[in-house]
Amino acid sequence: MTRRPVRGGAKRRETDMRTHLLAVLIAFTFIATTHAADRPPNIIIIFVDDMGYGDLGCYGHPTIRTPHLDQMAREGLRFTDFYSAASVCTPSRAALMTARYAPRIGMASDKRRVLFPNSKGGLPHEEITIAEVLKERGYATHCIGKWHLGHLPQFLPTEHGFDSYYGIPYSNDMDRDGSKGPKNRDAFWEPKSEYWNVPLIRDKKEIERPADQTTITKRYAEEAVKRIKENKDKPFFIYLAHSLPHVPLFTSKEFEGKSLRGLYGDVIEEIDWTVGEVIKAVRENGLEKNTIVWFTSDNGPWLIFDDHGGSAGLLFEGKGCSWEGGQRVPGIVWGPGHIPGGRVTSELASTLDFLPTSAALAGAKIPADRKLDGYDLSAFITGKADKSPRDRFFYYRDVSIYAVRDRTHKIHFTTKSAYGRDAAVKHDPPLLFDMNVDPSEKWNVAAKHTDVVDRLKRLAEEQNKGLEPVPSQLENENVK
Amino acid sequence: MTRRPVRGGAKRRETDMRTHLLAVLIAFTFIATTHAADRPPNIIIIFVDDMGYGDLGCYGHPTIRTPHLDQMAREGLRFTDFYSAASVCTPSRAALMTARYAPRIGMASDKRRVLFPNSKGGLPHEEITIAEVLKERGYATHCIGKWHLGHLPQFLPTEHGFDSYYGIPYSNDMDRDGSKGPKNRDAFWEPKSEYWNVPLIRDKKEIERPADQTTITKRYAEEAVKRIKENKDKPFFIYLAHSLPHVPLFTSKEFEGKSLRGLYGDVIEEIDWTVGEVIKAVRENGLEKNTIVWFTSDNGPWLIFDDHGGSAGLLFEGKGCSWEGGQRVPGIVWGPGHIPGGRVTSELASTLDFLPTSAALAGAKIPADRKLDGYDLSAFITGKADKSPRDRFFYYRDVSIYAVRDRTHKIHFTTKSAYGRDAAVKHDPPLLFDMNVDPSEKWNVAAKHTDVVDRLKRLAEEQNKGLEPVPSQLENENVK
Repeated sequence: MTRRPVRGGAKRRETDMRTHLLAVLIAFTFIATTHAADRPPNIIIIFVDDMGYGDLGCYGHPTIRTPHLDQMAREGLRFTDFYSAASVCTPSRAALMTARYAPRIGMASDKRRVLFPNSKGGLPHEEITIAEVLKERGYATHCIGKWHLGHLPQFLPTEHGFDSYYGIPYSNDMDRDGSKGPKNRDAFWEPKSEYWNVPLIRDKKEIERPADQTTITKRYAEEAVKRIKENKDKPFFIYLAHSLPHVPLFTSKEFEGKSLRGLYGDVIEEIDWTVGEVIKAVRENGLEKNTIVWFTSDNGPWLIFDDHGGSAGLLFEGKGCSWEGGQRVPGIVWGPGHIPGGRVTSELASTLDFLPTSAALAGAKIPADRKLDGYDLSAFITGKADKSPRDRFFYYRDVSIYAVRDRTHKIHFTTKSAYGRDAAVKHDPPLLFDMNVDPSEKWNVAAKHTDVVDRLKRLAEEQNKGLEPVPSQLENENVK
Repeated sequence: MTRRPVRGGAKRRETDMRTHLLAVLIAFTFIATTHAADRPPNIIIIFVDDMGYGDLGCYGHPTIRTPHLDQMAREGLRFTDFYSAASVCTPSRAALMTARYAPRIGMASDKRRVLFPNSKGGLPHEEITIAEVLKERGYATHCIGKWHLGHLPQFLPTEHGFDSYYGIPYSNDMDRDGSKGPKNRDAFWEPKSEYWNVPLIRDKKEIERPADQTTITKRYAEEAVKRIKENKDKPFFIYLAHSLPHVPLFTSKEFEGKSLRGLYGDVIEEIDWTVGEVIKAVRENGLEKNTIVWFTSDNGPWLIFDDHGGSAGLLFEGKGCSWEGGQRVPGIVWGPGHIPGGRVTSELASTLDFLPTSAALAGAKIPADRKLDGYDLSAFITGKADKSPRDRFFYYRDVSIYAVRDRTHKIHFTTKSAYGRDAAVKHDPPLLFDMNVDPSEKWNVAAKHTDVVDRLKRLAEEQNKGLEPVPSQLENENVK
């Protein structure tokens, strides 16, 4: 059986709807205006925990309603091929902060996949964060929510370029208090805040323990709104990293029972509300034309938690692995003064790109003495370039490259299920999938495209040569 | 392990975006106006073949771009839980036409699932079609595209209430000319029109054979535009049933290589273009405020055709079975003079409802002497009622009920894979899934909800009692 060959040529990677032409023209006018002024744009990253590719209305979920994110997408640029930098929490966040893959900076390990409350390590201080880059350019910098890059005082956000911190420093399912609630996984089905004795921290001070998780999403949003207001006369960077929808799931009274999707849907709908609150605050403070808001997730859905986990939509698998469901996540950027609206794109982008892109938009300096894995997407997202400069993405499982994709194909050298004890499977020849035709990774086309297999192999070899893993902060409790 | 109980109460089944409030108010004004006039609304049903739940931009496909359908959805009402009346072609279309499940009217069989070129049967004349109902009310009625309810002269659309017919009367993969092209399935991968010797019919006359399938989608659209224009001064009903994206896939030169998704994507993008052309013609002829356009598919994606088949998105399985992927399909209704826009709903709807709903909107009489399986959705879609009257849906596999759903749960009595020779599996106790929480049908909750199991069993028993299958038109070549 022959298969229709994959065709190249004039393929349209992007839709600019005709009805939005006027909006786009207006947006470009404002771009000229705002760039003329000397105030660089405010940057807000809204980052959620364990939300899947299929969990928003604008990504096709049937029963979760996300009107604010859908509107953000309509008025901005929605990515269909946006990647978190890793498939689990700590390495994903480390890479977002530094634009460097986690093994390069000691924030990945094949023994412990993330930091735990008994970990002694954290993001090394020789690394330069997006907050430090923007602070150097005169930005106010605020970290709100989950950090998970070291909870000892020397590793907290205020030691990594942030003026302030307010949040739970690691995952909301840590510090389990075994004296409270049902045993093991049963504690998750009807969760109470007291079952998990996690701290809420203001800067470096513990202010609540256990943190009341039922109000945490709302309180993070209130903190963000406050920071927007107090900084309306100077450029600011806000990193709003929600603790949810990581299990255990919690939601405010106002959102309880609101979603047809059950508790998980309630949580996403509350997060959607926070996005609406943030954008409303931006507008009300007159900052709409000079603020850029990103929205994405730290990895795919935690499928082992059944209906308390999310959905990867049409993608295979979820959190913890290098199949698409593990790392492809919703990605939206909004900013009516900079980002032409009404667009959907299949160009590549990643959380690794936040630092170089933000630096370019801000006119800030990026670290010149080290290799960055991120790309500057500023020309692309502002409509000055047709293509994203990102032409490759490496899927690390802990410290190893398991898969690589370019603009069209993805190669798997090794696969392993997200959780559980089954061994990794090495593929020789590797598996090859056409990501545009076959996002669900069903039809291996390696035999038909040996040239592509060779090219992607070389990409991985180059990346491996240029990356010497450093001692991990995650491997044991006493690194450094 | 206990699971969080499914909660009832004040769940929101519908989103009316605040930004659309004004539009809604305006729409209601027009409703009043148009209803006051005596011209009933024009009705257009755009029906596609084998397109999956996940194949449109507004249903979350990453690389298929459907700006016209997305706009239709934004300006209209998009259903997340819309059902084709059967999982294969002939019974699905028979039920759409008559508002009656196929076994009730002899249009289903467990031997031959659809009509073939050597079939002698067709839709019985004692059945009353939507075209007949609307014709009686003074509508011009035009059938364009695939019919598949009998291709002998006495069964063609013009014998079932349509003023005209233009189309291929059955599936585009029938009449295979074995002397042309590669053998068996290989013919599909680089298809040519000459491999399938299907006729194109005008009214009852064959006008082209083999039909040039590369231009068929475009020609159907041109026919629809012509009918809109020529009927602009009287009410009309147009049933535009595309032959595609059923395999073999064909597209016009203008759409060749246009989609990142490959040929299947090209086909969907051309169909999307036809939707744009139809709506443009409606507007250009000044009929925007008094026309209602539906868009949906006859069943789920034909997954055995790999990348030439579509995607059911997050749903399980595809065409041919009673899992959600077989029968849940995109469903959109548009009509700025009647249908308040900007809404997404998880209320139930089906192609079975087209007849009663259209009759109500048109002020036409529905057959009073027989049981209809369709519901009148007119109050719901026009915003006068909060809930759809449809509170149940029966999934027939051929002549038997395999599954039933209500507004929340779906019960499977029997399951069987879509194609292939594996036997049907009877489930006792049946499987039960929460459709709102678990659209992918992963977590059986039958043990937790025995009351629901009992209730849904009773629904099926009632339906069975009220439906005596009649001799099938499909079972052999010489029925009647």
